[in-house]
Amino acid sequence: MTERRPLYLDCDTGIDDSLALAYLLAAPGADLVGVGTVSGNVAAALGAANTLDLLALAGRDDIPVAVGEHDFQAREFDGGAPHVHGANGVGGVELPRTTTAPVAESAPELLVRLARENAGDLRVVAIGPLTNLAAALRLEPRLPELVAEVTIMGGAALVPGNISPVAEANIGNDPEAAREVLAAPWSITLVPLDVTMEHLLEESHRQELLASERPLSRALGEMLGYYYRFYEGVFGRPCSAMHDPLAAAIAVGAVGLRTAPVVHVEVDATQGPGRGQTICDLRGRHLGYPEQPGAHCRVVLELAEDFAPHLVDAIEGRLSAERV
Amino acid sequence: MTERRPLYLDCDTGIDDSLALAYLLAAPGADLVGVGTVSGNVAAALGAANTLDLLALAGRDDIPVAVGEHDFQAREFDGGAPHVHGANGVGGVELPRTTTAPVAESAPELLVRLARENAGDLRVVAIGPLTNLAAALRLEPRLPELVAEVTIMGGAALVPGNISPVAEANIGNDPEAAREVLAAPWSITLVPLDVTMEHLLEESHRQELLASERPLSRALGEMLGYYYRFYEGVFGRPCSAMHDPLAAAIAVGAVGLRTAPVVHVEVDATQGPGRGQTICDLRGRHLGYPEQPGAHCRVVLELAEDFAPHLVDAIEGRLSAERV
Repeated sequence: MTERRPLYLDCDTGIDDSLALAYLLAAPGADLVGVGTVSGNVAAALGAANTLDLLALAGRDDIPVAVGEHDFQAREFDGGAPHVHGANGVGGVELPRTTTAPVAESAPELLVRLARENAGDLRVVAIGPLTNLAAALRLEPRLPELVAEVTIMGGAALVPGNISPVAEANIGNDPEAAREVLAAPWSITLVPLDVTMEHLLEESHRQELLASERPLSRALGEMLGYYYRFYEGVFGRPCSAMHDPLAAAIAVGAVGLRTAPVVHVEVDATQGPGRGQTICDLRGRHLGYPEQPGAHCRVVLELAEDFAPHLVDAIEGRLSAERV
Repeated sequence: MTERRPLYLDCDTGIDDSLALAYLLAAPGADLVGVGTVSGNVAAALGAANTLDLLALAGRDDIPVAVGEHDFQAREFDGGAPHVHGANGVGGVELPRTTTAPVAESAPELLVRLARENAGDLRVVAIGPLTNLAAALRLEPRLPELVAEVTIMGGAALVPGNISPVAEANIGNDPEAAREVLAAPWSITLVPLDVTMEHLLEESHRQELLASERPLSRALGEMLGYYYRFYEGVFGRPCSAMHDPLAAAIAVGAVGLRTAPVVHVEVDATQGPGRGQTICDLRGRHLGYPEQPGAHCRVVLELAEDFAPHLVDAIEGRLSAERV
């Protein structure tokens, strides 16, 4: 049986964040001990409200949710991505409102406390801008020693970006924070658009969620209707990328990776046309990526398996601890 | 029969420049009316001497060769790439020394004069840093109207660079010049590492050249021995990329292109980690690259055919005008 290890999720909930949250609640191997929110898809406070509503819907309002940074390091939050996630962040779906409130700690404070309490064991999954993680590094410079590993949904290595020709939204929203986080000496797995745009949820998956007996699954199916309309402009049919849940699944070791070299990664924090790019040194690709001394970031370029069926199975509670 | 159109070559000769030169002398459809050299693989003056020696070996010392810019816009030339091309630029091969000298004009002056004399008809092929082309644009701001089209070997769109994780040598040596040239309103075809690293010359091709009756072919075969040793560190076997000859062949329309969208391209001329990158807006790839108003740069991402046999056939004089 898979060991259930403590996991802190940093998110900007968000439709695909909702999928990631549902995944982590269901996945054997994950023990979600806290959630922090950051501005990104929506404002940090709205992301926390959405997260609390989703947790209540899943009967898990015991999990602490902390509001994190509202503004980015170099600019104020500008309203997020309502064209992608809807004005309320969950595609206009009206979730039952919980009365549970966020904890008094900030998200960076919650992360630091959990890292100290679970020293050497805490896994961090960041699926929004990296503003909270950068703030936590400043609160506790020993954070990289305390945390077991960090998995980040973000960046684009050998594929185009999604908010500029080279920048992906999570990194591009706060390149200064991302630069700090990627440079800190912890073990990082970066899950970039190279894989999240290659593994899609289709209409059949959405229908499966809509037909579920679980209220959370049905809510996710409804949200995906909104999300699919945005991605129809990208892929030419109703479907969606699976950015955040894929990062969550990779964090708990539930997805096989075919190509994931450990290489030097630097974030472009200039004001030039490459601002927000994750510059990954992949020049060794013809030689199977020889070791790069000092590199500590694994960049996921290719999965070994299809991900969508696993995601739907997990959310629907069809994964046993033995399967993973 | 293919129309032979006037063509100006800007190069930094260089082993693969030598292949491009030999290709253009042999290719039906090309009328090489002038060559300018720029520092890059070697110093501009040495590149001109190599070019004159190669032209003499081919019996074509009637073609004017002009020495161009020695230093880049933002820094001095630093000695080039002897580890790739040898200290003399042609892999240590001792070419018979011609007595023909470069013309008195500079390379930018030669380019401007040829563009005026062949107004609307001149094709420009640039296979070194873009320092000369940028200087020519300043000499004659109407150059983009006078030139029919510009083909540039340079950049990397969706593959790693070769002098940094994202920068290719021709662009990365003089990003300021490249930025000016790519922004000028002429019709550009960019031939980046995306294709030049995918179409390789193998040892069998080299042996074919070494066995030739033509002195130029044999010299090229010898040079390639040096070039292959560098690329053994990249590909793990003796072989080489075909950067420059591929750009030359695409310039004369001799190679079918499978994927070559016309998109916005910007050169990163910051001092950041992305310096020298060609930032190509390829975000429309899932929709077959919808038209981008104002874009004037065709980026070659995929060929429709194998290139190496065509190159060897051309150099060996086995192409008829009808074939192309």
